[in-house]
Amino acid sequence: MPALEITESDKIYKIVNARLLLEHKIVENSYLWFQNGKIIHPQNLFFSARRDADEIIDAKGLLVVPGFIDTQINGSYGIDFADHEEPVDVLKKNIDKVAKGLLQYGCTAFCPTIVSSAPEVYEKVLPLLNHRKGTATGGAEILGAHLEGPFISVLKKGAHKQSVFKDAKNGIKDFDDVYGSELLKGSQAVSIITMAPEIDGVCDAIPDLVARGITVSMGHSACRIAEAEEAVTKGSTSITHLFNAMQAFHHRDPGLIGVLGAADLPIPKNGASHPEASNTSPDRQKPDPRPFYGLICDGVHVHPNSIRIAYYSHPTGAILVTDTLSAAGLPSGIYQLGGSEVEVVEDGAAYIKGSTTLAGSTITIDQCIRNFQKFTNCPLVEAIEAATLHPARLLGIDKKKGTLNVGGDADLVFLDDSTGEIVVKRVFVAGEEVKR
Amino acid sequence: MPALEITESDKIYKIVNARLLLEHKIVENSYLWFQNGKIIHPQNLFFSARRDADEIIDAKGLLVVPGFIDTQINGSYGIDFADHEEPVDVLKKNIDKVAKGLLQYGCTAFCPTIVSSAPEVYEKVLPLLNHRKGTATGGAEILGAHLEGPFISVLKKGAHKQSVFKDAKNGIKDFDDVYGSELLKGSQAVSIITMAPEIDGVCDAIPDLVARGITVSMGHSACRIAEAEEAVTKGSTSITHLFNAMQAFHHRDPGLIGVLGAADLPIPKNGASHPEASNTSPDRQKPDPRPFYGLICDGVHVHPNSIRIAYYSHPTGAILVTDTLSAAGLPSGIYQLGGSEVEVVEDGAAYIKGSTTLAGSTITIDQCIRNFQKFTNCPLVEAIEAATLHPARLLGIDKKKGTLNVGGDADLVFLDDSTGEIVVKRVFVAGEEVKR
Repeated sequence: MPALEITESDKIYKIVNARLLLEHKIVENSYLWFQNGKIIHPQNLFFSARRDADEIIDAKGLLVVPGFIDTQINGSYGIDFADHEEPVDVLKKNIDKVAKGLLQYGCTAFCPTIVSSAPEVYEKVLPLLNHRKGTATGGAEILGAHLEGPFISVLKKGAHKQSVFKDAKNGIKDFDDVYGSELLKGSQAVSIITMAPEIDGVCDAIPDLVARGITVSMGHSACRIAEAEEAVTKGSTSITHLFNAMQAFHHRDPGLIGVLGAADLPIPKNGASHPEASNTSPDRQKPDPRPFYGLICDGVHVHPNSIRIAYYSHPTGAILVTDTLSAAGLPSGIYQLGGSEVEVVEDGAAYIKGSTTLAGSTITIDQCIRNFQKFTNCPLVEAIEAATLHPARLLGIDKKKGTLNVGGDADLVFLDDSTGEIVVKRVFVAGEEVKR
Repeated sequence: MPALEITESDKIYKIVNARLLLEHKIVENSYLWFQNGKIIHPQNLFFSARRDADEIIDAKGLLVVPGFIDTQINGSYGIDFADHEEPVDVLKKNIDKVAKGLLQYGCTAFCPTIVSSAPEVYEKVLPLLNHRKGTATGGAEILGAHLEGPFISVLKKGAHKQSVFKDAKNGIKDFDDVYGSELLKGSQAVSIITMAPEIDGVCDAIPDLVARGITVSMGHSACRIAEAEEAVTKGSTSITHLFNAMQAFHHRDPGLIGVLGAADLPIPKNGASHPEASNTSPDRQKPDPRPFYGLICDGVHVHPNSIRIAYYSHPTGAILVTDTLSAAGLPSGIYQLGGSEVEVVEDGAAYIKGSTTLAGSTITIDQCIRNFQKFTNCPLVEAIEAATLHPARLLGIDKKKGTLNVGGDADLVFLDDSTGEIVVKRVFVAGEEVKR
């Protein structure tokens, strides 16, 4: 067989001297091959093309894990994704700036998040947030927007503007009216919708949203446990920032938080992805019927002990989110979030100006992983999976993201974990290394 | 060696054809020997006295487990242990009536519980509730009183009379003043004191109470997490009826409930007993620093999902309590509890008359075990241990109670578990069978 002409994009890379996160375990002294931005199987390669690697990457014993996925980011660097007042080309540059900035923390894919807004905001902004491949120079992959509201509760509005809140008496039609034609594209445009199950008509619209490939997450809700469980049976697979913007856990009606203690929930047969079974699952042989849940592990939004209780109740459901707002990456001061003024104080927490209502964080995803591991005492692998495998399963993209399995995107983070805490050392997006 | 004269009390019993709960496992087709009310080792017996059993008890394949221990019972059959208005001989008969009644449910030892009362009540009632051995005709063993209040919070008073509430500015002296000279006897008279850690002086008195062998439990408290953790570091090893009569679990200060999520707590070196290590313990090789916690598993006091979350967060800490009040064993109607009127409705729940404040249950301990297993989906062994081994460890009496280990009291319950749910079939107290 004659040697093939090798183009730059065909180049085969082989990572050596790596410790790989594979199948829930760290495999010492291992190799990883990739080509054209995808992880490949070296054996197939050898037999089909009789080729060896074109380039060797020495991991020098670092831990190589899948790129981190953040399903809730409102903005950073003074940029708020819900801001629509600038011209489109400025908005595009803003999005690029955030997408690039995320890479340094190992975040290689994210869901740009829009707080409750008026229809004209979605009309202008949503087309800019459609799914887009990541590159080392262009920034982290955009997984489609996360629409947080406006189908949420005034009782748990947080930093959201109540004047734009909606109900869904007309079912999916109301969602289409508010979000506009982009919603018809499904997950290509909209990855997640956060809604309150108790809002009129919302629960009944869940199957229609799920049918479009959209992940339905419960949040900013004062719902009772029965309403939350109904939403799960209709196809909701997630809770948005568990503990924040929901009823406190009352023992006789534990509300949305109480879904973590559900012993058995009938879930739709063709429902979206569910967490893997754990030792706390009702049936240890099947995916867990309980939803995933986002956690803001900044040590301010949620007390470490609460994080620990959630984790031990339902370990495979944990998803780390930053919920960063425009102030992330900037010093303390006053910033904008969906038209409200937000004050960022010394420790990085952001409050609605003049109140004690939290409005998002300024944390980074790698710090979330460090905190989660510290708060829960969990194995490092589980902390990393809460920012990789779990969000990928939630979004139904775990064939491409969230693992180092063959066929997946070569979104890679090299971590130094020699001190017990992870430190991001090198980042690859779709097989390209990010310059630091 | 000449044959020994066998008196009735020397008689050796051998249970055959039993399934025994031993070392956290069910051992099929096994034997259990006992003599003089104690479980004995057959091998030692054979070598020392060359004797076989005097009487064989055929368990017919039933599951044989340790007698159930209930650490919180306010009364039953119209009797309230805090009632002091009757003459002493009537009070004694009342106590006997409850102690006997408990045996039918497999409860072979209990802590008679006194709600917050005035000093004259303790003076009259406490001497009647001192530790007393159980017998098949006399009733379940009394393990010393459980004093619930009056060092508790007006914010979480439940059915307790606020007028008798106290603080402990003078430390242990205030406890002695309120409870009287019986408190000097330690666990012989008082097994448990439930107190609110935030009440002035209470935390500082914990080491003195623990030094007397008394178990200190946190409850009827509006404390913050830091106050609860301080109480644990001072020697408190328990939370009284978790979820009930405490702050709702708020994510930024999870309060008393949040102690279940503590990652690491320094505990006193010579502190009282702690739960065994579980897969959720900070250190899986050492006893868990987190406290035990009582659960009222009647399906009314605590939502099943909350029970499940608590169990998965800290499985070896769960203790099932009935918290029965005088109305237990009686039909719906109005009853007395520590001088307050309480209404028992159709489903057995008891409320402060004219309110939605719960005032105790009318459930039985065997039903608690069935409910706990159903609510949590846990293995049967773990449900039973929550009413046997765990309360025995809490009280530091696990050499004598809570297991079937050699040297322990022959308090035994024969259970039919063929349907998956336990049914009490035979009960032995100190080696005597209870006639049913």
